[in-house]
Amino acid sequence: MKARDYINSDNNKLLIENIGEKRFNHTIRVVETAEKLAKFYETNIESAKIAAYFHDCGKFLDKSLIWSKAEKYGLDIEDEMRQSPQIIHGFLAAKIIENDYGIEDIDILNSIRYHTTGRTNMSTLEKVIYISDYIEPGRSFEGVEIVRDMIYKNLDMALYTALNQTINNLIVNDIYIAKNSFLARNYYLLEYKR
Amino acid sequence: MKARDYINSDNNKLLIENIGEKRFNHTIRVVETAEKLAKFYETNIESAKIAAYFHDCGKFLDKSLIWSKAEKYGLDIEDEMRQSPQIIHGFLAAKIIENDYGIEDIDILNSIRYHTTGRTNMSTLEKVIYISDYIEPGRSFEGVEIVRDMIYKNLDMALYTALNQTINNLIVNDIYIAKNSFLARNYYLLEYKR
Repeated sequence: MKARDYINSDNNKLLIENIGEKRFNHTIRVVETAEKLAKFYETNIESAKIAAYFHDCGKFLDKSLIWSKAEKYGLDIEDEMRQSPQIIHGFLAAKIIENDYGIEDIDILNSIRYHTTGRTNMSTLEKVIYISDYIEPGRSFEGVEIVRDMIYKNLDMALYTALNQTINNLIVNDIYIAKNSFLARNYYLLEYKR
Repeated sequence: MKARDYINSDNNKLLIENIGEKRFNHTIRVVETAEKLAKFYETNIESAKIAAYFHDCGKFLDKSLIWSKAEKYGLDIEDEMRQSPQIIHGFLAAKIIENDYGIEDIDILNSIRYHTTGRTNMSTLEKVIYISDYIEPGRSFEGVEIVRDMIYKNLDMALYTALNQTINNLIVNDIYIAKNSFLARNYYLLEYKR
């Protein structure tokens, strides 16, 4: 499969309609970042571009749609998704592209599923998508430069640092922390300390 | 059962021998703090004093003893205890007082077990011991005053804040975070937001 089969003007139009122009522009920057990182870390570049292109397709401009879409696509709603709808959109996106585009590549689907929370034992593609979303050039939050400086030196260290910063941010803002984020943080602490 | 049956010069001598004078002095401050908090929150004062008195009895001055003691007292060593021996000492202390002092009160045992990590759905006694250990007058770390100011206003908010500060501290210092701490933090976020 080739990224150009998915990244075209018809799909762009639909994506802009669903997620809005601002998030679409972010998406394109994630595609570009993921392409470079995939090249550097020698994982499938076409898969990286496709996963990046669709990673936020479950984040509808109309926030109320998330529950009806979850029902439409038969998504299992776990308890913690109710506590934090932010957790849901990656899982929903994976359902959408599997159903609407026939994408069955498990590595692409997992990269999209876990792009917000991370998880233990991620594949290189999963790490590339997680980190690209975190550091794409449009991001300007406190701490982003620390992670940018790590990405070509040590991907696990970058991932560990991004997970820590994300958890800290959720703490500061009184937001639910996904179980996968916490498990991933401990997992990559041990990987990075090795 | 009365606290004076346990808090006496013989046990003081043994405790000082095992955990050292500095930690023994901390222990006495936790007993005093827990007594006040238990009175205020109307939980069993004798239980609070006993739990506080023994809470660190598994924290041996000779750190290497923890594994042989764990074996001697038949403690189940969970995976994460190996990652962070800090998690073990509360569980070991509960085993010691059950075995050596015949203390079977489940609320006292749980207060000691979870005094470091916290857990979801804690009893008032468990909260009193956790918080007393955290804010006893000898503590002077950054953020302790924020929690001290909350303890007589809202115990769950104090607990939630202490859990957040503890997790943040573990993140800053690259230390493993106990599963119970993370689960408790999310649980008391929801309690406190109610």
